[in-house]
Amino acid sequence: MSPSPGATLRTLRERKPLVHQITNYVVMNETANATLALGALPVMAHATEEVEEMAGIASALVLNIGTLSPHWVEAMLLAGRAASARGIPVVLDPVGAGATAYRTETARRILDEVEVTVLRGNAGEVATLVGAEAEVRGVESIAAGIEPAELAREAARTLGVVASVTGPVDHVSDGERVLAVANGHPLLASVTGTGCISSALTGCFLAAEPDAPLEAAAGALAALGVAAEDAAAGDPGPGTFHARLYDALHALDPDTLDGRARVEEP
Amino acid sequence: MSPSPGATLRTLRERKPLVHQITNYVVMNETANATLALGALPVMAHATEEVEEMAGIASALVLNIGTLSPHWVEAMLLAGRAASARGIPVVLDPVGAGATAYRTETARRILDEVEVTVLRGNAGEVATLVGAEAEVRGVESIAAGIEPAELAREAARTLGVVASVTGPVDHVSDGERVLAVANGHPLLASVTGTGCISSALTGCFLAAEPDAPLEAAAGALAALGVAAEDAAAGDPGPGTFHARLYDALHALDPDTLDGRARVEEP
Amino acid sequence: MSPSPGATLRTLRERKPLVHQITNYVVMNETANATLALGALPVMAHATEEVEEMAGIASALVLNIGTLSPHWVEAMLLAGRAASARGIPVVLDPVGAGATAYRTETARRILDEVEVTVLRGNAGEVATLVGAEAEVRGVESIAAGIEPAELAREAARTLGVVASVTGPVDHVSDGERVLAVANGHPLLASVTGTGCISSALTGCFLAAEPDAPLEAAAGALAALGVAAEDAAAGDPGPGTFHARLYDALHALDPDTLDGRARVEEP
Repeated sequence: MSPSPGATLRTLRERKPLVHQITNYVVMNETANATLALGALPVMAHATEEVEEMAGIASALVLNIGTLSPHWVEAMLLAGRAASARGIPVVLDPVGAGATAYRTETARRILDEVEVTVLRGNAGEVATLVGAEAEVRGVESIAAGIEPAELAREAARTLGVVASVTGPVDHVSDGERVLAVANGHPLLASVTGTGCISSALTGCFLAAEPDAPLEAAAGALAALGVAAEDAAAGDPGPGTFHARLYDALHALDPDTLDGRARVEEP
Repeated sequence: MSPSPGATLRTLRERKPLVHQITNYVVMNETANATLALGALPVMAHATEEVEEMAGIASALVLNIGTLSPHWVEAMLLAGRAASARGIPVVLDPVGAGATAYRTETARRILDEVEVTVLRGNAGEVATLVGAEAEVRGVESIAAGIEPAELAREAARTLGVVASVTGPVDHVSDGERVLAVANGHPLLASVTGTGCISSALTGCFLAAEPDAPLEAAAGALAALGVAAEDAAAGDPGPGTFHARLYDALHALDPDTLDGRARVEEP
Repeated sequence: MSPSPGATLRTLRERKPLVHQITNYVVMNETANATLALGALPVMAHATEEVEEMAGIASALVLNIGTLSPHWVEAMLLAGRAASARGIPVVLDPVGAGATAYRTETARRILDEVEVTVLRGNAGEVATLVGAEAEVRGVESIAAGIEPAELAREAARTLGVVASVTGPVDHVSDGERVLAVANGHPLLASVTGTGCISSALTGCFLAAEPDAPLEAAAGALAALGVAAEDAAAGDPGPGTFHARLYDALHALDPDTLDGRARVEEP
């Protein structure tokens, strides 16, 4: 039997795994704080001089192309291959794939050259990467003409990953099974980087439960979703919600998470 | 008749324009969150491989030299020329012009090579760029020997832009008319990046009202100022004020903005 | 007699010194806001084209290797040498020294080529730099087999700096005397960048009191510790604590600081 989200969270807090993140400038502070609040240890390092060594001591690697440039892409590939070689799980967040050719090509290149464990993106980004029709505006997007559950399954099969497609309801698939995660709150869309945070937390859950990536990916989204529900209590504005999101991640109780996680196999 | 600040805010929220920002590392998260809170969509991209494509799908471009380096300057010029070629409005925030020769020269170069729509800076930065006397300490500065209204008019005429000079009272000019904006709160000076936020919001307002840059620039400053007045209620410290600033931008009602905007033609 | 922490804070607020920071991407906004909240002026600049000029107009320079790469290392060395040549105090924060060879070597290189006034790190980082045994996991670490007071004294003697070793109790030494600072709160460890903030505030205190680096370094840690105690009132979560930390730094009264600072010579 696969571990519950709460059980994985408990493991994570006992082990405090190191999660190496090569991510974008906009959200580095936010993903580091979300990682810490949940109970893992973040480390950011992007120099080609050190990324292989850093990835080698980490329990998971998160690659995020939100503000990419050639040197950073090279570092992501180096770190990703080092992690792959050691069996360390890798999360790819293809921020803005579909918005520019450079982002689409870079995401494809990472998928080709690195053993990506979980691809975590929105519907438009993931649709772009499986060749489906999508409308991407900057880093916001929608997929046209394909149901999100089917998109997740298709992406998992085509790309050989666990696909984690976030939206009003999230869909995570390993190509066979699909898990739908119905936690969350619309205020998440009013704060930049909450998608990137979901990718970072996916890395945390994978670090704690590397042998069950489908459940780990869904559990991470449930954890963020439940925390968002708590942070949204009283209908605050986005600035107050943002600060409270870290409070809620930190206060998240494993049993509460299991009780409130709305993860279903539709 | 030109649209009121509230009318422009209403348009912005209906259209949710994409605002491409090439800005400094210190404030990227903050300007993205302010853009989202107001109701537009931010996107950050700085690689020379993609900035022209990204600028081409945006409704406004914001260039901010707060932590510049050669590759970023090159990207700003590429994006700026692409925006100019397509008639997309460009905001330049010459952070620290006058503090170092590199910043002064870069700001001048962007003004020369890009069709800057609005130059948004503090008095010392703008005075430096028109060749007036100024004292700049790092990124704080004052202009000596010239009234801010006159400085704005002079900068607009000399540099061929709408000049938006922020301070205790802001002055915006197209070289003929001058609009004074008397909204705001001293707590804005206790949080880093609020000047950069004003430039980002100027980009948002320009995206919604590209044909009235003088009014759009003044409206953006009024919107930030009214939000700051709301966020400062109860005299919080700067950390709490900062979080509430996003709440207030998000809650800002177009009619309230028009009722409270203190925009005058002195 | 050396100035008290409160006296130095009073001087700092009168003079509003400019503190030039070449720091990591994760914490730039946070260290800038902490600097502003305390009462000094931050400026971030990292281009080799301008760092010497910027360091030359600053009253202190803070170097932090948390997300280093070759161009940034070069900039740190240029700025550091320019500061040294003009007698401007320099703080080095060797983030992650011991975690990768690149970080250890870079920290050593800066110590060799720049006149570092204060080295501010955790026990594992400082132990690495004096050649003692340490366990470093990413940017978290512990020193093995050496008491922190002794570690601080040893680092000061070996490296020719004031060593500021932070932990549950902080220890600051000039090689002869050791000051123990017992302020602070465990919540500081739940927010990323609070170590980097302590380095930035050390730069602020040095800028105000360059002739008493031992006392300035201890005073900065006492100020952050007392502010953290205030911010932790009511046992908030890490997000709320983080916002309140700036409130508390801003509200910190010099006399209160002197009354509550727990600085002792053990």
